[in-house]
Amino acid sequence: MSRAIPKWEIIEGDLATPQGFRAAAVAAGIKKKRDALDLALIFSDSPETTAAGVFTTNRVAAAPVLLSRKNLVESRGRCRAIVVNSGNANACTGRQGLHMAEETTRVAGNLLGIEPSQVLVASTGVIGMALNPDLILHQLPHLKEKLSRESAAKVAAAIMTTDTFPKSCVLRSEAKGKIVHLAGVAKGSGMIHPRMATMLSFITTDASVGERMLHNLLAGATAESFNRVTVDGDTSTNDTVVALASGLSDVSVIPGNDSRAWFSEGLTLLCQTLARMIARDGEGASKLVTVEVVGARTPLDADRVARAIGNSPLVKTALAGSDPNWGRIICAAGYSGAQFDPNKIDVSVNKMPLCRKGVDAGFDEAAAHRELDQKEVLLHVDLHAGRATARIWTCDFTRAYIDINASYRS
Amino acid sequence: MSRAIPKWEIIEGDLATPQGFRAAAVAAGIKKKRDALDLALIFSDSPETTAAGVFTTNRVAAAPVLLSRKNLVESRGRCRAIVVNSGNANACTGRQGLHMAEETTRVAGNLLGIEPSQVLVASTGVIGMALNPDLILHQLPHLKEKLSRESAAKVAAAIMTTDTFPKSCVLRSEAKGKIVHLAGVAKGSGMIHPRMATMLSFITTDASVGERMLHNLLAGATAESFNRVTVDGDTSTNDTVVALASGLSDVSVIPGNDSRAWFSEGLTLLCQTLARMIARDGEGASKLVTVEVVGARTPLDADRVARAIGNSPLVKTALAGSDPNWGRIICAAGYSGAQFDPNKIDVSVNKMPLCRKGVDAGFDEAAAHRELDQKEVLLHVDLHAGRATARIWTCDFTRAYIDINASYRS
Repeated sequence: MSRAIPKWEIIEGDLATPQGFRAAAVAAGIKKKRDALDLALIFSDSPETTAAGVFTTNRVAAAPVLLSRKNLVESRGRCRAIVVNSGNANACTGRQGLHMAEETTRVAGNLLGIEPSQVLVASTGVIGMALNPDLILHQLPHLKEKLSRESAAKVAAAIMTTDTFPKSCVLRSEAKGKIVHLAGVAKGSGMIHPRMATMLSFITTDASVGERMLHNLLAGATAESFNRVTVDGDTSTNDTVVALASGLSDVSVIPGNDSRAWFSEGLTLLCQTLARMIARDGEGASKLVTVEVVGARTPLDADRVARAIGNSPLVKTALAGSDPNWGRIICAAGYSGAQFDPNKIDVSVNKMPLCRKGVDAGFDEAAAHRELDQKEVLLHVDLHAGRATARIWTCDFTRAYIDINASYRS
Repeated sequence: MSRAIPKWEIIEGDLATPQGFRAAAVAAGIKKKRDALDLALIFSDSPETTAAGVFTTNRVAAAPVLLSRKNLVESRGRCRAIVVNSGNANACTGRQGLHMAEETTRVAGNLLGIEPSQVLVASTGVIGMALNPDLILHQLPHLKEKLSRESAAKVAAAIMTTDTFPKSCVLRSEAKGKIVHLAGVAKGSGMIHPRMATMLSFITTDASVGERMLHNLLAGATAESFNRVTVDGDTSTNDTVVALASGLSDVSVIPGNDSRAWFSEGLTLLCQTLARMIARDGEGASKLVTVEVVGARTPLDADRVARAIGNSPLVKTALAGSDPNWGRIICAAGYSGAQFDPNKIDVSVNKMPLCRKGVDAGFDEAAAHRELDQKEVLLHVDLHAGRATARIWTCDFTRAYIDINASYRS
């Protein structure tokens, strides 16, 4: 690697843009809507593939989360396949649910010629409803047959639940004269919270990364991206971020080398791009809101203030109405637990000051309303208590959120 | 006091039912709606009156909260008057806001023949908007003239903001052949959170209670009532609970005596009755929901689980749709931080089991929907991890909450 770290650029593509990956997606009848894609298989052809995963912190973890955590350990980070379904979370389904997940890895492993422990599983959808095992098991041979680079573009759609658009991003960089790719898909929408924010994200790369380093870099990138999104403050039972590295680009990421910083930057950029898409597509959301806190006494204080503002139903409903109700913003800062002087706080929206030194900045109401009416809104809060900063992505809280969630099961 | 502690019964009445109290309320033009009551004065005629207060834990505390805290200390718990307005919170209003609150206590004190420090102030309404001092100061002489027992019934209405009904409760008990009263009003609706749940509550009693004991009993009753309500998880800048004890019933509450338990029981019952009214009247709420957690390892765990369920937007939107989505309930328990085995948890609604040992209890969908469609719903969660219990009152989360809050300021 040269001294100047190579840049990453966003390009068109999908999970199979990195070398060595194929995928397939089918409509297995798990979702109520007929012909909706709801089952996908992602596969790496390279036996050298490494894998890492980050999962929900919820004590009530779904069967696929329990099994995937176990398989990453058992295979020593050598997983090569991911079977993912939407429409049913296989959570709170007891022994039967776990048995079904195990059967899935066993059958998929046999079909793909790898160990069952090299297969990861993920599910998203309704909690607590039994999932008919046949819906998935019968489809596995078809999925295997359909595996192709062309089908990989369908995975982002197959993992959607209440998402309104598929979320994917592909990055390219050149290192040592060779091209390296990073690709990712994600699904979000509801039950999105900073403790493992996204419900699901799958990442592929043709860089060569040891499984331990891949895990560390993935955990770091997740902390700066998916764990900084909030839609409703609910931590899901199924959150899963998995990365597979095929190594086929012939570029290695090596500890104590510039390559580590370079790859980490790309992975973080990829995850942040997907995370912002999740916030923008929060259930019922009409806008993407970035909460930026500066001047905090400590990083923890900055984080607390950003999360309190980003989670406040009163701030988020005011955002829905484009109401410059800055009082609710500093009220949320006030109960966040952070230390600061309420008479020093500044609040602005898209650089227009709303509050200066804790009181009304004398802004133009109509102009502030227009700023808040944008598709992207930046809330900037300066606590004037120190130098620490933090950022959270969130969305507004609309009637549509209620409509979506009042009868999600039925 | 006899060995059997006398009972408290709920009766008709208002803040002036306890002996020694008068009140008045006027339409001062602070609320946008013309002729809406928005300013009230509560006064105790007895020079022996003791007072206690419990206030918001928000670091951004409103001017009236700062001043009332100070006056309780300065007067050594001898406050006799409360001036309260709705329509403007006098929060985030800087020095001008504090000056206005001070002027209010000075003018009211002069008019009533008491020290300014014997006057408490409270405000509720929009945050961060300057409050014209004249609106209140010019009305104080009228309020003083109008002070009467008959006008006391108007106070509950004068403190309402987005509340849909006035909240008051009066209790009576007989001790040593004498009648003692406890009366309270409250306002809630939005920005309601377990750390000082109600925005405002004022309590009068004709029992004789030392100011220190009154404070301790009020703090205890608040912990078991107002601090166990959640509407939206936002802790207000203005939360205030104040109790005034005139002593005119000639019944004293004495430390180390049955009278303490007796009075504490009445005060807690009063506060719980008001707290339940606040939950029932949460912004946009269609039902009162009691979350009852049993079988927790520790009281803290029980509390965490109850609060996580009561605060979850996904649980609350499911409640709005009467959807028996028990998966969201145990999901919230799972991220609460409490320790328990997900395979042992039971969940029921109004005694109908929804989930047994962590999986679907095989309930009748239509019957469960009917139970959730009641005006009062009991969610019962047994963690089977110990003996600790906790209870939280909450409400459902409807489109009306969004409508109310998307343009509250404008």
